[in-house]
This record gives sequence, C-alpha cells and structure tokens, in this order.
Amino acid sequence: MTSRVESSLQTQLDRIDRVRTARLARAILRDEHITLSHGSGGKSTHTLIDALMVPAFANAALDGFADSAVLSTNGVGSPRFAFTTDSYVVSPLFFPGGDIGSLAINGTINDLAMSGARPVCLSVGLILEEGLEMDVLRRVIASLAAASAAAGVPVVTGDTKVVHRGKADRLFINTSGVGIMRDGLNLSVESVRPGDVVIVSGDVGDHGLAVMLAREALEIEADIRTDSAPLHELVAAILAAAPNTRLLKDPTRGGLATTLNEIARHAGVGIAVEEEKVPVKREVRGACEMLGIDPMHIANEGKLVAIVSAEEAHAAVDAMRAHPAGVGSAIIGEVRSEPEGMVILKTPIGGSRVLDMLVGDPLPRIC
Amino acid sequence: MTSRVESSLQTQLDRIDRVRTARLARAILRDEHITLSHGSGGKSTHTLIDALMVPAFANAALDGFADSAVLSTNGVGSPRFAFTTDSYVVSPLFFPGGDIGSLAINGTINDLAMSGARPVCLSVGLILEEGLEMDVLRRVIASLAAASAAAGVPVVTGDTKVVHRGKADRLFINTSGVGIMRDGLNLSVESVRPGDVVIVSGDVGDHGLAVMLAREALEIEADIRTDSAPLHELVAAILAAAPNTRLLKDPTRGGLATTLNEIARHAGVGIAVEEEKVPVKREVRGACEMLGIDPMHIANEGKLVAIVSAEEAHAAVDAMRAHPAGVGSAIIGEVRSEPEGMVILKTPIGGSRVLDMLVGDPLPRIC
Repeated sequence: MTSRVESSLQTQLDRIDRVRTARLARAILRDEHITLSHGSGGKSTHTLIDALMVPAFANAALDGFADSAVLSTNGVGSPRFAFTTDSYVVSPLFFPGGDIGSLAINGTINDLAMSGARPVCLSVGLILEEGLEMDVLRRVIASLAAASAAAGVPVVTGDTKVVHRGKADRLFINTSGVGIMRDGLNLSVESVRPGDVVIVSGDVGDHGLAVMLAREALEIEADIRTDSAPLHELVAAILAAAPNTRLLKDPTRGGLATTLNEIARHAGVGIAVEEEKVPVKREVRGACEMLGIDPMHIANEGKLVAIVSAEEAHAAVDAMRAHPAGVGSAIIGEVRSEPEGMVILKTPIGGSRVLDMLVGDPLPRIC
Repeated sequence: MTSRVESSLQTQLDRIDRVRTARLARAILRDEHITLSHGSGGKSTHTLIDALMVPAFANAALDGFADSAVLSTNGVGSPRFAFTTDSYVVSPLFFPGGDIGSLAINGTINDLAMSGARPVCLSVGLILEEGLEMDVLRRVIASLAAASAAAGVPVVTGDTKVVHRGKADRLFINTSGVGIMRDGLNLSVESVRPGDVVIVSGDVGDHGLAVMLAREALEIEADIRTDSAPLHELVAAILAAAPNTRLLKDPTRGGLATTLNEIARHAGVGIAVEEEKVPVKREVRGACEMLGIDPMHIANEGKLVAIVSAEEAHAAVDAMRAHPAGVGSAIIGEVRSEPEGMVILKTPIGGSRVLDMLVGDPLPRIC
C-alpha cells in the first residue's frame, strides 16, 4: 500500500514539475512597454511574473502562485509564519459598499487566510499625491482603522510618502501582513487531485462591477456593492469542518475563471464546472450581459474557492453556509485528471466549452 | 540601591510619558491638503503621523517612532519578530551609486536591523505606470535581486499593479520585511539616558545630494554617490561589541539632525553634538554650501546613529571601524539631561546653537 501511495505521489510531483517547466518556458515577454493588462491578474500578469520575477528572485518560498510566502522562524519546531504583500490602486477611492481603505485591509487578511495562516498584524504604506484633500486622507485612514478593528488584525507599522502633483492618482496603499501558520495543514496546489470537489463561497462578480459602475458614467442603474470582507474566520470554519482541505484561493483580479485556470495549470489537472451552479446575482448577470463581460472574469474581494476531498465536501459546504461570509456557498464542480491544465464549463443545455483565464483587462484598477 | 534605581526609572518613564502626551497634544493638523513637506520625514511628517495615524491605529506595537514593529508570535517563549514597511518613490530611478531597486532592499533591511532584528525575508510590491519601458523594469528587478542576494535576505513574495499613463511616475516600490529579534536586547528610546554617547557610522549627506544632483541640471560638478548599503551586519558587530547598546537609528529622510531631534524628544533628553566631529565629505560640504542646505538635514541610506553607554563607546566605535560599512565611524556627541527634547550643536569656535529637525522639504522624493 505504502509503495503505491508513494509511486502515485511521485507521478503527481513529476507531472507538476513538467507543467511548471512548460509554463516557465512559455513565458516569453514580447512587450517592450508595460500595458494595463500586465496588472489585470490574467495572462499578461502571469507572463510578466514568470518571465521576469520568478527567475530573478528564485527561491524556495517564492513560487509565483501562493498568496503568501510560508517560512519557518529559526530552527526546527519553531512556528512557521506567512508573509504577504499587496498594493491597492483602485479608482475611484470610494465605491458602493467600500473604499480603498477597507479593501486594503481585507485583501491582505485574505491572502494570509488563504495560505492557512491566522493573520497576526498588518503594515500600511501610503503614497500620497501632493494636493490630496486632507479630508479624503482622514476618511481613508478611518476606514483602514475600522476594517482592521472589525477583523481583529492590528496595523502595527506604517510609512508615508508624498509625490508631486500629477505623479500619482491621489492615493495608493500597500498593505503587507504576517500570520502564524496552523500546525498540520497541507494547503497546497500539489495536494489537489482528481475526484476533489470545487466550492465557491457565494455570488461572484460583485466587486469589480461595483467599482466599474462607480467609475464610468454608464447608463446602468443597479444596486451592486463590493463584497469586500475579511475571510479569515470563514477559513477557520472550513478547516475545522474539513481538515483535509486541499487548497483555498480568493478569486480577485481575473475572477473565478482565472483562479480555476491557475489551479488547473499548477496542479496539472482538469477542472469541470457546471455553469448553472456558479452563483451570480441577477443584477450582476444583467449588467455583465449589457457590457459583454463574463462575471467569471470579474474580481471578487470577499469570496473564496475551496478545493476539498469528496468525503469532506458536504461538511465543508455546511460549515461555510453557517458562516455569515459564506451563506451563498455552493459546490460548482470537480477536479478531473484531464484535460490537463484546463477548465471546462458544462452549460445547462448539455454542451461544454473551455473557460480560459482573463486575457486583456476589461476592468483596470479595480483593486 | 534597588529602590533608588527603580525610582530613577520611574522618573524617566514619567518624563517620557509627559513628553509623548505633549507631543501628541501639539500635533494639530492645520493643512487642508497634502504638501510635499508631509513626505519629508521632518516636522510636517511628524505632525501628520501624530495627528492622524497614531490615534487611528492606536495599539501597543505602533508608537509612531520605531523603525519596525516588534511582536511575539504566539505565546510565551516564542521568538519575537520585527515587521516593517517602506515605499520608495525616488526620482530619478537611477542615480550615481544606486537605483530605486537596491535602495528599496537596503532601506527595509536597515529598518529591521535598527530594531535589533536579524532580517529574514522581504516582500516587493510594484506599482507600474502604463508605458514604462520593459528594459527599465528589467534593470530595476535585476537590481532588487542583486541587492537581496548581496545582503543574504531573500524576496519571498510580491505583487504588481499597473495604473494608467500619467497616474504614477514610472515605478514605485514597496518593500516590507520580517526579522527575528535577538534575545536579551533592549534597544529602545526609553533606555537612552544622560551620559550616553552618540556615534555616527560615517560621512553624512551623500545619498540625498547624489539624487538631487542626478535630478536637477545644476552647475555643480562633484563625484557624489549614494551611500545606500545594508547595515544588518554592521549592527551585528555593534551588538557583539556593545551588548548594552541603547538605540540604533538610520538617519534617512530629514537627515542626522531630524533623527537626533526625534531621539531627544522621544527620550525626553538633550543631545549635545560637536559640529566639527560630524563627518561630512569635502565635496558634499562644498555642494551644500552652494545650495544653502545643511548636510545634517540630508538623507542617508547607509549610515546609522548608535547611542551607547559611555563604558561601551570605544568598544562600539572600534568594532564599527573594523567593519566595511562603518570605517568612517565617529563619536559626535553625548546625551544630557537637558535641554529636554533639544539638540545643541557646539561650534568649533566655542559657540552653540539649536539644531532643529527638518522644516519643509528642500529635497523631495530622495527615497
């Protein structure tokens, strides 16, 4: 038995190595200038990271995919910690249901939570444009502080820089975060295997659309608010109910479609999703149809994707639905051995099509 | 004996409390808009932090003065860690002796080192302007990677955002960092006391002037290069030679004068500096005279100020001079009980004057 398990693990690892090598080899950066799509979280972002960042900073902790780096402190037996960083350049600064401040706190908490860490503390780095109204700064700082207090994760260090008028767009925020890893977890893309179940924690597409509607003078009247929320307590509930959870990811830039594609590629598996099971609000679906955008390509800031074993799937969904941040949770698909590296969407009328990751950027600067 | 020591400590703590309360009470923010001087590291920056940030994020770890927050992981006996963040908006991106990439790595390493931590890992968050030349990004990433490798502190996580053309100035970098605290250290402004000795690790003013000369089309021809360097190994040498070191600070924005004023104010002590003992390169002094700037108000990126006990002062200076990053180290002054919160500069001809912290910002965006 043991040897069969080991051999199956070796096969799995070989496949992942093969997929990674192929991915890095493909990452040829042909652009001579940075474009907005390099910040989309989609294909261009992946090419940029794989071609420029991963080779430059090559080390064990940085794999270009994890939401946080996981490191040991000093020596065997010490607690491991998670470390993550995110910059926020959303425009406008304020939008229905949230603003750049609460977004920056929740987003970084979520990156820590997805890696299985309990968030411990955050930093806030501000880049301010000369001429920014002090009242705007006051509101953003109040929002940062309120979100930090609501989540129970303190801001412990900070930095402020000012650039000349016209050299930034009012206000950018970097939040980095440190968390302590739970013992005994093995959340990793390597643990994803055929037969696993794909769960999403609620309606997708709200955040990106809320920001876009706040920004553009569109003739769409819809009450769409950001879903920005801290997910660390929802993660705690999932891990308690489904201790063998394979992987948690928050589908932010590039949306659910990009996140599922990333998982399929990095794990060297196929993912089959039933389109009608993916929860999307009626208003969001309507607005997306008018704009010609797929809600599965739109960023979320308060949702997660959980890949769990078939045995633990119902326990996980029940626990998620019992939590305020996961009431809309649904099983939307399953992991298969093939087609390797691809996501297949099964339509309600019995057809199926490939669901690709985001290409280009229909919604720049939504986080 | 014990009671006298305790009573003296209590007096010291009472004075620090009084100074802090007075400082926060003074911090009334009258500006209605952000100005460049809010990013100078001088008086306006302090007012902004004291009036807006410290009250909003009030917690034990954040005191608005330390270079890093120091926190315990989880529970008694766990190692304590240090956490810091810094954004870099220097213009131009490349200047004699360095660039924004090496600056961002060294600066954050130094913030960790000043808190007495051994730097463990760094994050890099990039904000890119649409249209940035890919070759510029390549050079900056190569510089980040080279500085990280040279210092032995890996970049383990990152983030990339892109904003529209005209909404940033080519490239901004945030580097955050985590370090593990050494046991048994008590580096803190509270431990500074009259009789202590003030040491600086070398020539001051190089960095800010190098950037300014690279930026402005000035009629000054001088070979002035940034001093940007990682100081964590110099700190290790100091702490080995002078284990009772009171405080380490890197005099970056606002320069040596601002750093000494911060120490005097936060510790509730006076600091007397002998002007002729402060090391300044001849070219730097000459350029400063032409520009009407005091080299003590100019940012350094590879220097530190050490406050050590009189007993350990010579051991500290000897150890510093024996290290490549500290060959120009010099004792420049001493801590006195008064004038409380002030820095007095003793001139070569026997006079003395108050050395204030930076007011306004003669050199914006030098880091």
